[in-house]
This record gives sequence, C-alpha cells and structure tokens, in this order.
Amino acid sequence: MKLGVVILAAGMGKRMRSDLPKVLHPLAGRPMLAHVVAAATRIGAARTVVVYGHGGAEVRAALADEDCAWVEQAQQLGTGHAVLQAMPLVQDMDRVLVLYGDVPLVDSDTLSRLIEASRDSGLGILTVLMDDPTGYGRIIRDAGGRILRSVEQKDGTPEELAVREANTGFLVADRARLDGWLQGLTNANAQGEYYLTDVIGLAVAQGERVASVHPVTLEEVSGVNDRVQLAALERFHQRRLAEGLMRNGVTLADPARIDIRGRLTTGRDLFIDVNLICEGEVTLGDGVRIGPNCLIRDSIIGDGTHIFANCVIEGAQVGTGARIGPFARLRPEARLAPDTHIGNFVEIKKANVGEGSKVNHLTYIGDTDIGAGVNVGAGTITCNYDGANKFRTLIGDGAFIGSNASLVAPVTIGAGATIGAGSVINRDAPPGELTVTRARQTTIPGWQRPRKQPKT
Amino acid sequence: MKLGVVILAAGMGKRMRSDLPKVLHPLAGRPMLAHVVAAATRIGAARTVVVYGHGGAEVRAALADEDCAWVEQAQQLGTGHAVLQAMPLVQDMDRVLVLYGDVPLVDSDTLSRLIEASRDSGLGILTVLMDDPTGYGRIIRDAGGRILRSVEQKDGTPEELAVREANTGFLVADRARLDGWLQGLTNANAQGEYYLTDVIGLAVAQGERVASVHPVTLEEVSGVNDRVQLAALERFHQRRLAEGLMRNGVTLADPARIDIRGRLTTGRDLFIDVNLICEGEVTLGDGVRIGPNCLIRDSIIGDGTHIFANCVIEGAQVGTGARIGPFARLRPEARLAPDTHIGNFVEIKKANVGEGSKVNHLTYIGDTDIGAGVNVGAGTITCNYDGANKFRTLIGDGAFIGSNASLVAPVTIGAGATIGAGSVINRDAPPGELTVTRARQTTIPGWQRPRKQPKT
Amino acid sequence: MKLGVVILAAGMGKRMRSDLPKVLHPLAGRPMLAHVVAAATRIGAARTVVVYGHGGAEVRAALADEDCAWVEQAQQLGTGHAVLQAMPLVQDMDRVLVLYGDVPLVDSDTLSRLIEASRDSGLGILTVLMDDPTGYGRIIRDAGGRILRSVEQKDGTPEELAVREANTGFLVADRARLDGWLQGLTNANAQGEYYLTDVIGLAVAQGERVASVHPVTLEEVSGVNDRVQLAALERFHQRRLAEGLMRNGVTLADPARIDIRGRLTTGRDLFIDVNLICEGEVTLGDGVRIGPNCLIRDSIIGDGTHIFANCVIEGAQVGTGARIGPFARLRPEARLAPDTHIGNFVEIKKANVGEGSKVNHLTYIGDTDIGAGVNVGAGTITCNYDGANKFRTLIGDGAFIGSNASLVAPVTIGAGATIGAGSVINRDAPPGELTVTRARQTTIPGWQRPRKQPKT
Repeated sequence: MKLGVVILAAGMGKRMRSDLPKVLHPLAGRPMLAHVVAAATRIGAARTVVVYGHGGAEVRAALADEDCAWVEQAQQLGTGHAVLQAMPLVQDMDRVLVLYGDVPLVDSDTLSRLIEASRDSGLGILTVLMDDPTGYGRIIRDAGGRILRSVEQKDGTPEELAVREANTGFLVADRARLDGWLQGLTNANAQGEYYLTDVIGLAVAQGERVASVHPVTLEEVSGVNDRVQLAALERFHQRRLAEGLMRNGVTLADPARIDIRGRLTTGRDLFIDVNLICEGEVTLGDGVRIGPNCLIRDSIIGDGTHIFANCVIEGAQVGTGARIGPFARLRPEARLAPDTHIGNFVEIKKANVGEGSKVNHLTYIGDTDIGAGVNVGAGTITCNYDGANKFRTLIGDGAFIGSNASLVAPVTIGAGATIGAGSVINRDAPPGELTVTRARQTTIPGWQRPRKQPKT
Repeated sequence: MKLGVVILAAGMGKRMRSDLPKVLHPLAGRPMLAHVVAAATRIGAARTVVVYGHGGAEVRAALADEDCAWVEQAQQLGTGHAVLQAMPLVQDMDRVLVLYGDVPLVDSDTLSRLIEASRDSGLGILTVLMDDPTGYGRIIRDAGGRILRSVEQKDGTPEELAVREANTGFLVADRARLDGWLQGLTNANAQGEYYLTDVIGLAVAQGERVASVHPVTLEEVSGVNDRVQLAALERFHQRRLAEGLMRNGVTLADPARIDIRGRLTTGRDLFIDVNLICEGEVTLGDGVRIGPNCLIRDSIIGDGTHIFANCVIEGAQVGTGARIGPFARLRPEARLAPDTHIGNFVEIKKANVGEGSKVNHLTYIGDTDIGAGVNVGAGTITCNYDGANKFRTLIGDGAFIGSNASLVAPVTIGAGATIGAGSVINRDAPPGELTVTRARQTTIPGWQRPRKQPKT
Repeated sequence: MKLGVVILAAGMGKRMRSDLPKVLHPLAGRPMLAHVVAAATRIGAARTVVVYGHGGAEVRAALADEDCAWVEQAQQLGTGHAVLQAMPLVQDMDRVLVLYGDVPLVDSDTLSRLIEASRDSGLGILTVLMDDPTGYGRIIRDAGGRILRSVEQKDGTPEELAVREANTGFLVADRARLDGWLQGLTNANAQGEYYLTDVIGLAVAQGERVASVHPVTLEEVSGVNDRVQLAALERFHQRRLAEGLMRNGVTLADPARIDIRGRLTTGRDLFIDVNLICEGEVTLGDGVRIGPNCLIRDSIIGDGTHIFANCVIEGAQVGTGARIGPFARLRPEARLAPDTHIGNFVEIKKANVGEGSKVNHLTYIGDTDIGAGVNVGAGTITCNYDGANKFRTLIGDGAFIGSNASLVAPVTIGAGATIGAGSVINRDAPPGELTVTRARQTTIPGWQRPRKQPKT
C-alpha cells in the first residue's frame, strides 16, 4: 500500500497579524508545517505533497530540506479544490491522507490508527467528541452507528446540532475513488468554495462505508488561527515533552517551566531546575544538574556536570564533572575538558579548556587553547582581535594567569608559566617562569583628593 | 447627563497584614485605587470622589496626580455611610456611580453597560451569577424577573439562598433619589453599620424599577481582602494583557510567564520569550525579539533589534537592528544607535553609542559619548568618577579601544585612535594614532612559584 | 499513650528510573522520607521505625541526622510483612501508626485527627473520597456506616466498585492487637504478598469498630511512583507554601513561580518578584524587595534591602537598606553592612563590606575586609590566590579604589587612601595618599592599524 500525503498549507492566516505565512509560525522552535511533514514521514508516506498559496516562496524556502513535492493553489477556492490541485502528484499512490499545515500536533499514532481502521473502506475520517462542538461540522450516524454525513453548524437541525461528534477534516481515502469524489464537488454554498468535507456525503451516496477513529487528545486536531491558539498548543506540546522527560528519568522542578525547541537527549538521573530552554540538538549526560534560568542550544554536556543558575550555552561541548556558572556564557566552539570550572561573568568562545582548568571570574577567553591544570585569574582578557584580524592565544599546562592580565594574541604562555597580575603580555612567556609587565608602585606626595564640585 | 463617581477606599485591609493602605497595594505595578480611578475616567466621569479613611494622607499622596476630589470617612460606619460622606461633593451631578477601591479590575465597558441599562431607572445594580454564592447577598426577583431586594446570607430562607444571582455592591443611581435613600438607611443590624445595599429595598419600596447587568467575568467584581486574592487578580489581569498582545501580532512563548506593569506598545511580528517583565512605558518595534528572563523598564527598542537572554534595560533607547546581551545592563540615558552590539556583562549608563559600534564583553561605559564604528575591547572601564565628581569620556568615530583599558575621564579618544590593551589613559589620545601606557614585559629570573602553606 | 510510627520505605521505585532509592528523591529540597519522619515527629511519636529495603545503606546515610530506628525488610513480601518486621521495635508502644516513605505530604493535622478519632478503637484508617477511585481499594460500610472491609479493585462487585470512598493504606492500631492481626495475615493472593490492608477485615471479624477520618486534600495521601507524580506533589506543596507566605504579609508577583526548598522566614511587607528560589535557611527582613530570577540559599537579608534582578546569593549576610544587583553574586561568608551597594557583575566571597561602601561594577572581592564608606571602582580585582595559597586584602574606611585596579594580597590599603586606575598594588598603600603604578602614556609615532588579512 503506497500512501500519499497531501498537506494543505495555503491559508492566509490573517488573524496571525503577521508578515510570516501562518504555516511557518514556529511551534517548539520549528515551523508548524515542519511538524506536519514530520508526521507524514513517521507514518511512512511514500510521497508528501504540500499545497501552498500565500507566501509560497517563503514557505518552500523554509522547508527546503524536507523531501516534499510542492503544488500551488493560486486561488483560494476551498479545501476540496486544494486537494484537487495535489492529485496529479499522487496518481501512483494507493491511498491519500489529507493533513493540515496549521494543525501541527496531529499525532502519527492516531494517523496510523486511522489508516488501519480504513483498510477496508474507501474513506476514513478522524472525528472527535467535544463537550461543545459549536461551529464544527457534526457527524451524523444511523442507528447502527454508520456514518451518513457531516452537517455544518448553520445547516443542522436541533437534533443534529446536539451531536457531540465533530468532523476534524482529516481523512484518508482510496486514491482513485477520491479522484472521483473531488470531481463531483460543487461550490454551491454561501462561501462559493469547494469543501473537502463534502466527499463524505458523496462517498456514502456511493454506498461507501466510512471508517472513523478518534484522536487521543483534542489538541492533536486543533488548528491555529491566531497566536492565542498557537500559544495554547505550544504549552500543551511542551507539557507533553516535559512528561516524556520525567518518565524517562529526569526530575523537573516544574514541568510548566521548561521549553524544548529541538531535540533533547537525556541520560539518567538528571535534575533540571526551573525555566530551562533547550534549542536545537542538546545532549545532557547522566547525573547532569541544570540550575534555574539557563538557555542551552546545540550543545553536549557530559555526565555529572553541573550547570549553575543563569547560564547561556551555545554550540559548546562540556566534559564530565565540570562546574559551569552561575552567569557563565559558553559560545560556539567552546570545548571544555572534564573537571573544568567556568565561573561567574565568564565568556568562552572558540576555545579549548584542558582538564581540570579553572576560569572562575570575570574573564573573556576567545580563540584560545588552554592546557590542563591551568588557573586563569579574575579579570583576564584574551585580546584576540586587533581591530582587523583574530589571533589565537596558547596557554600551556599548569600555567597560572594573574588577575586582570591581558594576553595579546598571537601569544603563547608556556607550560607552568606564571603571569603577574595586571600584566599585558604581547610576547611569548617562557615556561615555568614568572613574566610581568609592571610599573613601580608609587605614592604621590601631597596629593589631594578631589572635592565635590558645585553644579554649574 | 453628568456622572459623578464615588469610590469607597476607606477600608482597613487588616488581612493584607501590611503597613500600606489596602487600596495602594499594586496590581500590574499601579495601586489598585488608581485602576479604579482610571475606570471612572474612561467612562467619562465628570467628577470622581474618593472616600478615604485609614492611611488617608498616604492614599492622597499616592494618587496626587489624579483628578479626584477627596472626602474622609473618619468613622467606619458602613458603605452607606461612606457614600453619604461623598454626596455633598456630587450635588451638581445627575447620576452617581459607586465603585470600590479594592475591586481593581472593574471593567469600564461593563460600567457603561450598567449606566446605559439604568438610563430609565432611578437605580441600576451590577449582579453576578455564581456557582457558589455562599456569603454574598442574593438578588431576589419576582416572577416577572423584577428585582425585589437583596437578601444577606444570614437572613435568607433556603429558597432564597438557592438563588445563584449575587449582588456585587456596584450601583448607579439618580443623584437626588440616592440622597433620599441614603438618608433613609438605618444601622439596625448585627454590625451596627449603614449598608449601601439597603438602598435596593428602599428604591423598590418607592416603586423604583431596579435595572441590572452582569459583568463579563467574575474577576471584574472580585474584591481584594488578602494577598492571595490580590495575586489571583494579578494573574488574571496579566493573562488578559498577554492575550491582548497575542491578538495584536506578538508571539509569546508562554502567556503565563509575562508581566506587564505599565504600558507596553508593540509593533508587528514580535517574539517574546519566557519571563519578560515590562515596567513603566515600554515600546518594542516591529520584529523585535526578546530573549528569556529580561526586565525592561521605561525604554524604547527599535525595529528588528534582538535582546538576548537575561538583560536588564531601564530608561534606555535602543536603535534599530541592534544586538543586546545576553547579560547586558542598560541603565538610564543609555542611547544606542542602530546596529550597535552590546554584549555580555556590559553596563551602559548615561552614554551615547554610535551607529554600528560594539561593546561586547565585560565593560563599563558611563557618562560617555561613543561615535560610530567604534570597537570597545573586553574589560574596558570608563573611569567616570573620581570619588567626588563625574566626568565624561568622548570616543571618536572608528576608534579601537584595546582590552582592559581604563579611560580616566575627562578624556577624549580621537577618531580612528587605537588604545593599547591594558592602558590607563588620562590624557587625550590623538586621532588616528596608537596610544598606550605600558611597562616593559619582563621575565623574572629564578623566581619560584609559591607552595601550599600548611594550615596554621 | 505512647505512639510508635512505622514508616514503610523499602519500595524499589522502578518507575522513577533512578539509581537513587525512591524515598530519597527530594521534594522541596528534602528527601520524601525526611518529610514523613518530620510528620511523625510533629505528632509526638515516641519512636519512629523506618523499614528499609533497596538502597538501604544510602537511605540510612541520608537520614543519619534523624532520630529513627531502622529495620531491614530483606525480602519484599508485602506491606503487612514490612510492618511485621518493625513490630519488635515498638513492643513498648501503646499504639502504632503506619506511614509511607513515598507519600511525602501526609499532614500531621490529619494524622492527629486520625489518632484522636481512633482513641476508642483498636484500628483507625484514613480513607478518602475520590471522583474516580479506579484501582484503589474501596471501603465497604454497612447501612449504619460501620466499616466492614476494604475490597480490592479486581475483587469488587459492580456495586462495591461504585463506592467512591477509597482506602489510603494509612492506619493507626492498638499495638498488641495489631501484633495479632499481622500474625493472622496470609499471602494467599495473586501477588503472593502479605497485605497490611487485610488487617481491616481481621479486625472487623474480631468485632472491632474501625474508626476513620478523611484527609483535607487528596495530595496528602498521594503516593509517588514516578517523577510525573513527584512533580505534581512538588507543585502542590510549593503552591501551599506560597499561599502561606501571602497570608503572612508577603506579596508574590506570581504564586506559581516561587520555589521554597528549606525554611524561609519572612518579615512584613515583602515584595517577591517572579522565579525566586530559596534553599536552606533563608531570612528576609521587613520591607525586603526581591527582583525576578533570584536564587537565595542559607542567607539573611536585612530590613529594607532590595535585591535586584538575576542575583545569586549563597551563605551571605546582608545588612539593612542595602542595594544588591542586578547580576550580583554573593558567595559564602559575604557579610555586607547596612546601606552597602553591590552592583552588576560583582562577586563577593569571604569578605566583609563596611557600612555605606559601594562595589558597583564588574568586580571580584574575595578574602577581603572593606571598611566603611569605601568606593571600589569598576573592574577591581582582589588577587587573593597566588596559585597555592589564599591571602587577605584589607581596605580601610573611606578608601577609593580606582577602576581596573588589582590588589595583590596580602595587602593593606590605608584608610582614606586612593588607588589610581589600572594600578597593581602589591605593597601596602599608606592612608590618605594616592598610590599608583602607572607607566607613562605614549603615542607611538607612525603606527599603522592592522588591516584585514586575507583568509588563508
């Protein structure tokens, strides 16, 4: 059975009040449409066709890495018309599943159940039981439970409107029969549009037994029309991710205060305090502890490492048993060996820090290779930029850099070297020796401290 | 129709457990009473009279900027007595609306509906349907729906107590008739107080048809007696503000984690990450992105500017396309031109930073004018204070300040000048030249690194 | 009446997916088991016996400070068997109360009510009314309300399963009779275990009238089997702590965003902004204001002190009227006198800071005594570590430390001394004088700024 998936993504999204096409608005850091494409992939779609409209070029560019076929719906003539545009691209498929670019949390398990339930039907639809289905099409069944039709809110009798089972718009159909039903749609309705939902009636009229399944949650089939709805789905999704982490052996101080935007891989027995944000690909090893209010993006944190409060870590690799923060900033290509200590108000960029080395206070390390067992004093600056070019600083094993030192790259501090506090080092410092630049300490005789001047 | 508003604000608020008068406790950064006064203004009150009691001087001082009349209720003899104190100040009004200083979220649209519904009645009251009205006065109506009276919890028959419609205390009345009813109140009750709510019975007894409307939400008419209730209204109010932002084109990572205390003006297509706090007057331009855990007060942020995580910004103006943070602190009178970069652990105070200039790491800039295209190295300090007076530093266009430099104000760094790393500059540096203060780098022969001393 | 408490803490907790024994997983910063032991202490237990199993040594070590007796349940043969192991240790008690190490929020008031209600019964049990008791044992009563038995889910008739009253497992019993009932338990059930709950039936069979009370909340009797449940109880507990703070005179910006892990003592009229975390013993005086995103551990903050955004404070004492932060880090043994100012990107460790002294920007103060009225300039570093040993810095009253200074300990800066910007001070600076180390400022003739090199 070859499955083609058609994703409707042409809607304008006026209520988003945005220059960005609606389906590109991110949920958990990825465009809504990308979530839907991923669901299609997970259920084994042999082809995925995206029907685009408004902002088409932008949509295609944003999804350029996805294996999709694209078709434009130049005029917005309804969902039935939209699917019709895609049909030429799925002529070699056996079945066609219709998804929606603005219904991002559709669950692949639910879709698989729908496909399975429809195995012997020409048409299967996803329907949902709602406490208040006002505004949704109601699913009308006969006494035997067989689906007869979907009735729109405005067309329903009071009895029909009392039905709590609503149509979600999701459907899977035999490709060939769907071709026929789509040809049979008319736009004889108030909006003058071709509605995909009308294929239900056409199928039943042809004697088709329409299969149906329910989603597990309402959110799976909830569409996004404005940013309030987007935020509601974002929180639902984040809550679900948080529960997955907890079931997997991660303690969360507050499951309502964590945001995963990308892929987070976790070890065993982690503790994550409040307000963590993970973006991109993040790996946290066994026993890692993350303090409150941290942001981690595209980084790998080794087993047993503690990240303290208020750290920002991007593109970094941190070894095992390290101590980072609070108030540390690791930037791309920061590579910290095991048992390193990076303290408060310290920035590390494009630098290797060797095993057991410490950079504990108010320091900028950029474009630098630090050996093992090095102690970098408070206020140290690697002067890696001369206004035009960047150069590297090399600091050998066991070196000790005094506080407030400026290391003017390119420069090498030898192994075991000591640099005096406040020195500006612009020539290599030999290993094992003390190197300083220091003027003589002088007390100025007769100097008077300034007095407060009158305001002028 | 001239409308007088009487705001009852004399309550003690013992359960707040506070030295601050209850009505001054802030909600969304402003005293509760100020919210109520603002509602009166929005509905076009010709005069607003605040009846104060406990902490009167403090209350009057806190609202000094508001256009209110004030009257003291020296003795706490009940709400009816309180309104009576205010009546001499509204004798030239046609109608009188009674509000409460500790019911801060009363909605001006609801009040307008109440006034409109009471246009042909001597009395109109705001009533509310509650699932559990225990403790509230119940609104008793006749078979035709006409209001007969309000019955207190302790006086109600079981049938009356089964009524779900409760009295909120809010009312609007014909001024002259209210005068009469208030005169007719007695304190023949358990508390020995004159209850405003008794005017309902008096009005009905005089054949008055009492009009009524409901608020949209329960929170509009919810009073604050303790800080638990205050927090509940704060969160409700913040949630409503968040929804307003989202409907207006702002994406919020989490609508439950944003606090607006003051007025926030937003452009189109903003992204605001978790835990933003805005205080005072804040303007965020189109396409602005705000990272997590930022605090912004009384500032203007230009279009397309990104504020990264953990920034504190107060009294600043930031141009378009700027990059601020993470861990940046902008203090009052920081004025950043377009395309400026302010990086981590940087503080800017009373300073202008010119277009495209960068201050990226561990720097203090105070009382300084920085030109365009300047690069300020890591660890730079403007020494603006000599212990008694503050002086300005001037840095010309295109200057390059080496790392760990100290610029001792008053001092001018010429355009295109370069300052060597670690220099202490206390005389003007000429344009286009390299200026340094640097001692010779020396390696000390025979120096021995200290050894760990035994603990004594 | 001597009360013995038996706490069952032998469960494996497989669904925690943890190497840590389940009962040691922390709630509000303390092991769950410690909460239960504390409840036993609060109700006046004459002896508390913990029945341990998996990870026993670790459990005993973690609770080493508690006054508990310990008994091992080597084989996991059921709750009845577990209590049986403990009975030899409570033979001198009159009554025995059974608690659970993984039901951490059991309330001592509820337990006291249970004990009181059982005063004239051989057995008293804690039962709870649940909307959906599926999976729990149902309490079957006769027409007179007398407890007959507890029926397990799988054994219940439809009528029995319709009962909403569930057994919680908590019970208190006459010690001697409990001995007998425990001896009478059998393991003739599907699991082959001895169930404590079966004592209910044995007691009734002996004509015992079983007393019962309900807890106030469901959470009191909710057990933790996985980290999702743990997080739910954590949030419930934190919410309750937050409400206690608010009723006690503390304004919380958001009661859902505060975490108390330990004991927080608060004065009157505090304001606490969002995301505070308190750990250990923390005292906040009257009128203290705490900005957003702060972490405070084992510290005392004086009356009227303001802590601004994003501070991390550990083991510190802060006097009255101080101003701390934003972005300040106080480390253990930081002792700040009244009216001190500690500003952004400043770290203070093992240091005394005298009255009215200011350390406002980008500074590291470690192992230092600072007098009163001192101004420490931006970028100052106390060089307290020579790579092997730590030394102290002394700064006298009224001294002024210029920016970017390095004070190389051991060193004394005299009272009223001034240190020039950028100086490296490694000998004592006399009082009242200006001391500097400064090279002459030089402009290099003919110097050319580097040009951008081509990438190679």
